[in-house]
Amino acid sequence: GLAAAALAGELLPAAARAAGGEPKPVELPEIHAKTEQSGGNVPNPLPPGERVGFAVVGLGHLALEQIIPAFGSSKQARLVALVSGERDKALAVAREHGVPEKGVYDYQTYDQLRDNPEVQVIYIVLPNGMHAEYTVRGAAAGKHILCEKPMATSAAECEEMIAACKKADRQLMIAYRIQYEPNHRLLQKWVRERKYGAAKLIDSVNNQNQGDPSQWRQNKKLAGGGALPDVGLYCLNTTRFLLGEEPTEVSAMLHQPKDDPRFREVEESVVWQMRFPGGVLSTNTTSYGTHRLQYYRVNTEDGWFGAAPAYPYQNIKLQSAYAEGPIEYLQEPTLNPKDQFALEMDHMAACARENKKPYTPGEEGLQDQRIMEAIYESAASGRPVVIKTPGAGNGKMDIFRGEAPKSAT
Amino acid sequence: GLAAAALAGELLPAAARAAGGEPKPVELPEIHAKTEQSGGNVPNPLPPGERVGFAVVGLGHLALEQIIPAFGSSKQARLVALVSGERDKALAVAREHGVPEKGVYDYQTYDQLRDNPEVQVIYIVLPNGMHAEYTVRGAAAGKHILCEKPMATSAAECEEMIAACKKADRQLMIAYRIQYEPNHRLLQKWVRERKYGAAKLIDSVNNQNQGDPSQWRQNKKLAGGGALPDVGLYCLNTTRFLLGEEPTEVSAMLHQPKDDPRFREVEESVVWQMRFPGGVLSTNTTSYGTHRLQYYRVNTEDGWFGAAPAYPYQNIKLQSAYAEGPIEYLQEPTLNPKDQFALEMDHMAACARENKKPYTPGEEGLQDQRIMEAIYESAASGRPVVIKTPGAGNGKMDIFRGEAPKSAT
Amino acid sequence: GLAAAALAGELLPAAARAAGGEPKPVELPEIHAKTEQSGGNVPNPLPPGERVGFAVVGLGHLALEQIIPAFGSSKQARLVALVSGERDKALAVAREHGVPEKGVYDYQTYDQLRDNPEVQVIYIVLPNGMHAEYTVRGAAAGKHILCEKPMATSAAECEEMIAACKKADRQLMIAYRIQYEPNHRLLQKWVRERKYGAAKLIDSVNNQNQGDPSQWRQNKKLAGGGALPDVGLYCLNTTRFLLGEEPTEVSAMLHQPKDDPRFREVEESVVWQMRFPGGVLSTNTTSYGTHRLQYYRVNTEDGWFGAAPAYPYQNIKLQSAYAEGPIEYLQEPTLNPKDQFALEMDHMAACARENKKPYTPGEEGLQDQRIMEAIYESAASGRPVVIKTPGAGNGKMDIFRGEAPKSAT
Amino acid sequence: GLAAAALAGELLPAAARAAGGEPKPVELPEIHAKTEQSGGNVPNPLPPGERVGFAVVGLGHLALEQIIPAFGSSKQARLVALVSGERDKALAVAREHGVPEKGVYDYQTYDQLRDNPEVQVIYIVLPNGMHAEYTVRGAAAGKHILCEKPMATSAAECEEMIAACKKADRQLMIAYRIQYEPNHRLLQKWVRERKYGAAKLIDSVNNQNQGDPSQWRQNKKLAGGGALPDVGLYCLNTTRFLLGEEPTEVSAMLHQPKDDPRFREVEESVVWQMRFPGGVLSTNTTSYGTHRLQYYRVNTEDGWFGAAPAYPYQNIKLQSAYAEGPIEYLQEPTLNPKDQFALEMDHMAACARENKKPYTPGEEGLQDQRIMEAIYESAASGRPVVIKTPGAGNGKMDIFRGEAPKSAT
Repeated sequence: GLAAAALAGELLPAAARAAGGEPKPVELPEIHAKTEQSGGNVPNPLPPGERVGFAVVGLGHLALEQIIPAFGSSKQARLVALVSGERDKALAVAREHGVPEKGVYDYQTYDQLRDNPEVQVIYIVLPNGMHAEYTVRGAAAGKHILCEKPMATSAAECEEMIAACKKADRQLMIAYRIQYEPNHRLLQKWVRERKYGAAKLIDSVNNQNQGDPSQWRQNKKLAGGGALPDVGLYCLNTTRFLLGEEPTEVSAMLHQPKDDPRFREVEESVVWQMRFPGGVLSTNTTSYGTHRLQYYRVNTEDGWFGAAPAYPYQNIKLQSAYAEGPIEYLQEPTLNPKDQFALEMDHMAACARENKKPYTPGEEGLQDQRIMEAIYESAASGRPVVIKTPGAGNGKMDIFRGEAPKSAT
Repeated sequence: GLAAAALAGELLPAAARAAGGEPKPVELPEIHAKTEQSGGNVPNPLPPGERVGFAVVGLGHLALEQIIPAFGSSKQARLVALVSGERDKALAVAREHGVPEKGVYDYQTYDQLRDNPEVQVIYIVLPNGMHAEYTVRGAAAGKHILCEKPMATSAAECEEMIAACKKADRQLMIAYRIQYEPNHRLLQKWVRERKYGAAKLIDSVNNQNQGDPSQWRQNKKLAGGGALPDVGLYCLNTTRFLLGEEPTEVSAMLHQPKDDPRFREVEESVVWQMRFPGGVLSTNTTSYGTHRLQYYRVNTEDGWFGAAPAYPYQNIKLQSAYAEGPIEYLQEPTLNPKDQFALEMDHMAACARENKKPYTPGEEGLQDQRIMEAIYESAASGRPVVIKTPGAGNGKMDIFRGEAPKSAT
Repeated sequence: GLAAAALAGELLPAAARAAGGEPKPVELPEIHAKTEQSGGNVPNPLPPGERVGFAVVGLGHLALEQIIPAFGSSKQARLVALVSGERDKALAVAREHGVPEKGVYDYQTYDQLRDNPEVQVIYIVLPNGMHAEYTVRGAAAGKHILCEKPMATSAAECEEMIAACKKADRQLMIAYRIQYEPNHRLLQKWVRERKYGAAKLIDSVNNQNQGDPSQWRQNKKLAGGGALPDVGLYCLNTTRFLLGEEPTEVSAMLHQPKDDPRFREVEESVVWQMRFPGGVLSTNTTSYGTHRLQYYRVNTEDGWFGAAPAYPYQNIKLQSAYAEGPIEYLQEPTLNPKDQFALEMDHMAACARENKKPYTPGEEGLQDQRIMEAIYESAASGRPVVIKTPGAGNGKMDIFRGEAPKSAT
Repeated sequence: GLAAAALAGELLPAAARAAGGEPKPVELPEIHAKTEQSGGNVPNPLPPGERVGFAVVGLGHLALEQIIPAFGSSKQARLVALVSGERDKALAVAREHGVPEKGVYDYQTYDQLRDNPEVQVIYIVLPNGMHAEYTVRGAAAGKHILCEKPMATSAAECEEMIAACKKADRQLMIAYRIQYEPNHRLLQKWVRERKYGAAKLIDSVNNQNQGDPSQWRQNKKLAGGGALPDVGLYCLNTTRFLLGEEPTEVSAMLHQPKDDPRFREVEESVVWQMRFPGGVLSTNTTSYGTHRLQYYRVNTEDGWFGAAPAYPYQNIKLQSAYAEGPIEYLQEPTLNPKDQFALEMDHMAACARENKKPYTPGEEGLQDQRIMEAIYESAASGRPVVIKTPGAGNGKMDIFRGEAPKSAT
């Protein structure tokens, strides 16, 4: 507990920081001139033994290629257990990452996590249709839950998940990595402080081209939909994250080709527009059938800014523009890159340690699910759908969120 | 007539080109290695005395800053008359550009253009609400008409203009400069030849920030609308130009702030989506209230391409992307720039000389007007609007167009 | 003469501008918000009959594809005569551009330009080895001279040219188009005002890939050298233009492959470095044997800026960078593009009208020639060569130049 | 030992891979279409207990901010010991990274590493002037050495280091991280396979702006020089890496301002050019007094390619260009990013395990040191310096290197 002071005051209250006898974070004098880009500081992670233990559930691409490697960059989380239906794979991964064999579970033994005191957080990286069950069982096992997006495949499931965690007095966080990533947080700041005047329009695109028709992502039951819940969700929740407002109306069109085996059950593409109470209109495009393209642009009175690519695991790039007399400045603002999965897990770890509401709690996932259901409804009915969000509007912002992590730039 | 052979065969039929006694276009041997970018050839314009004479009607920003200067780059058109309500300004401009005083008209004497044999084409650069009257009067004066976009302020006016020109056996062309510009023509070619597979989604944005609230562009009667008919029209007609198809459905949202003196009569922003018969969905954003941002992206199966900025008078830039194994290639394809107003006027000149239907005839402008009316209707009613276009669909393409100019890259 | 007041005060002294009875330049109210990019004003050219008449000598690529077309964008110059050894070509070009047959000369009749009062300026666009003769003969014919770069093939020739023009009391200008182009002028301003601190290093590259081995550009006698005098000269004179200082030392290496028919007589590539009295070091690269690449970077204490591509006829692009806290800003500053040949000819026209020293007089060309000779000497001897420039150093800047045109951004 | 088969055959001989009973690397089926960018595979690191143990010597910015965090992304290396003169700092860092207290050494107890069997490799991250001593002592302690660049402060030191490691039969590798980084390796491949024809010119820049005048980097004895050995070295060794050839001649100019407290002992800037036996010329610029700018461009016959920024710890970006008919393609080729420090350490780990010569052995560092000494000599004498490299030339390439790691893209 005491060692957390090594975190440079990022997560602990002032009282704890002032406590005597604590190890101080390591700091180094600056090498470069003051006009050079700052940053790249000494990370000062928590000692391994004091980090929050995570169990990762589901060992697919995201878990093996992004999440598990990200523990290597985490300051507060460590991998202590794995859950998988394929025992050989799980044992191999465990061996590679120093997880003891007793930390390897399957879907039957999952509930025994309850008896593993090393595990404080369960990170659910399963197909969407399994999120609800494993969240409910995980909370019942006394663990905090970090659940991949989309939260589930229906608003009803989301509500069930929230209720289960509440009942167990455990935190529930949705893994909206983008909302912990420094570039996106910078743009959110620019929107909120009206860097180039008020935001008026946001355009957002997230497309990729799926391969194997038999994968679970194109199975309606397991995925809950096609492009929309998987990649289109980024357009939706990033726009909400930037503005802090809730849309009041959505209107959508959907395309599901008849002759493509990938889209027997789920849509290929959706386009939709949203109206926000402050007057902002947004357009959104998502597809499972076109080459990867990911970007958004925030159009403000006196400039614009955005990200392209916006949503990759690495190499997010920003753009902005404004004019000064006869010169139009097109800019690429660059920050020191950070591992967004590590930042997300570190926030979950801090919330677990303090049992405090995350910045992206289950309520955020539920709200996104409700809006996605409205998008599907609009596409099906051919009519705009009005969205009523109790407590939203009248200038209220970020109504579902816990406190944000301190700036990570 | 014969001198046109100097145009390197761009516009005349083979028979004319083969005619003896014609001056040959000047050609020069190549300087650079074959692996260097080609182009930048000798322009070989028509001799001044053989070019088609144009009268420019309306001397505002577009006429004085873009169109009249573009005669300096034209190969087939020359400025021979001016029409303006401000005689002093018209005389000054005439003097600067070598137009004789007898070539200066006002709105009362406009019909006397009939008696000026130097004038073969009237280029109408008036406020939108005046396009119909001056087209009808110009055709009645026996002249071909090149009319700025938007064609008019209602479909009824557009129909009247088409009928008037038909009756007078004169050509009517809408000044869709983008459709004569080499970069956009290259992307149209890429769409049509499926360079990176089939196009599936097109996203398009055209925003700018208006100043003076009293200008005619924000006067409903003179402008016909706000951002949509002025700048949003580019999104609409460029998407149609790329695909060659007609949308079957539009759905729109509109924003008109109550407290901004610029938007007392017209909308600030519109977002809309369109469905095309081949399955393409498009999203579109236009605004009169945000910093200039102009781009479009065509999302295809195995790549994407687009333009950003897409619609400026100069410095249009292309982007494209595709992957090859572990490498994602983001590209800026660059062509030798051309003056798009000169290319547009040269096409009008060729059509006038041969009395042949332009690539962007009045029917194109009428169709755009009909779709804009559907967009406004959708925004007002809160419902998608179905668009029926007789003769469209079933794989038919470019149903309103004359023949395109030969490639200008 | 009086009509020049229409030029918005750009070129005439205040007294002339104040003269009564002059036509006023046409001006229009602003359309856009003040935070949008300004510019794109009404050009207000001089009436054709009051412009300065130019004879173009030599009808190769540069003349036919860039210079003659640029008269269409000029405000003060007009094409009135052509000089060529190929009479058929000259007549065709004359016809295309409205030059009367009596305005067509050949190298024998060249001196008869003396008797053509329409011609005030001779623009020499001949192979480098012919510049001296035609400048001397042109000055003797009583005309001002605008001579393409490089000025000649030896410093001795340059001195002869200067003397001839001085004797004839005619102006001599070297066609350094880059030094009239708005983007480069902006960067010069940034260097001089120390926008990001003092300039310390300038790196410059100008490479292209030659084709036909038999062209005059690779003939030592006609070209004076290979890549260096043709394209490497841009690196040299743009660096001098930016700094306003004269180099005190150069050191060079040269490559001339033995087995390439293009480089039998002239070098393929040269790299050289220069030292300037204020402490700036510069590196330079030029080649006739690699794909086109043109850029320069000015490295200053707290930022950097440059152009890439730097030297094309169109589409010059700027880049700059600086940091602010944790953000590194990479920028593309964009100006409204201008035709650089038209700007250059307009400056010559103004200097001819007022018989005043141009911004890039013969003395500039001579200095560049001297430095190029030092570069070749260094490459041949394998030693740095010291350059002594009487009157330079001690903080003196731009010692050879006339007054610059007013800003053209 | 056997477990290394988990590394997907990257580092072990075929025989070892074929051995029975080995755990197989985890592999997953592809999600995306074949036309999407490939990569991002399951990393499959060695189990922690089987990785090669590293001691890191010197706990400054590079060690604490880049190298130690990179163990989190390494597949074959792990941190087991620390050496520092500041025991409190070392203990804090040890605690944060799970290094036991007995793994913490100081400069007196350094030689006791001999008795720590966990340590197989010593990674020296000390000021340059201490590299030789600690390499010699480390080799004497029976450990393989990974030494930061520059290798030392004189060729004599370098030779001593090589001899010491040879005597102890230990491998010596210089930490040229760039040469293990996928983007640079891709460009090396493009040079070698003549993707756009033969390379002819390479221009390279590495500048940054130093702050605190009292830091060791500006102390001649500790640093060996100023900008050149620290950042200019990247220009030198990356050019050699790309070409595989040794320069035969260098020519340099240097600037050391008299009034800047940062440059009392060392130079601010150096520019130099190099000639290579295959005909390539290169220009190079390095500075400690200007805003960060890092790039290189390889100019080839039919295209060019390079990196900008070229040398940062993260976010390296590639550029390339070529033409096809009227289109010039400017490209940004993007690879999945990798941690270059982890790749470098993994190569050292593999070489330690197999006691095999690294791709960047001590001989590479010695050669760079010799060339830097020639650069300083040229700058001091004002003359080019000829470099003779026994065994180089006559088409021999990469004469100092061990085998490269298998491709890491």
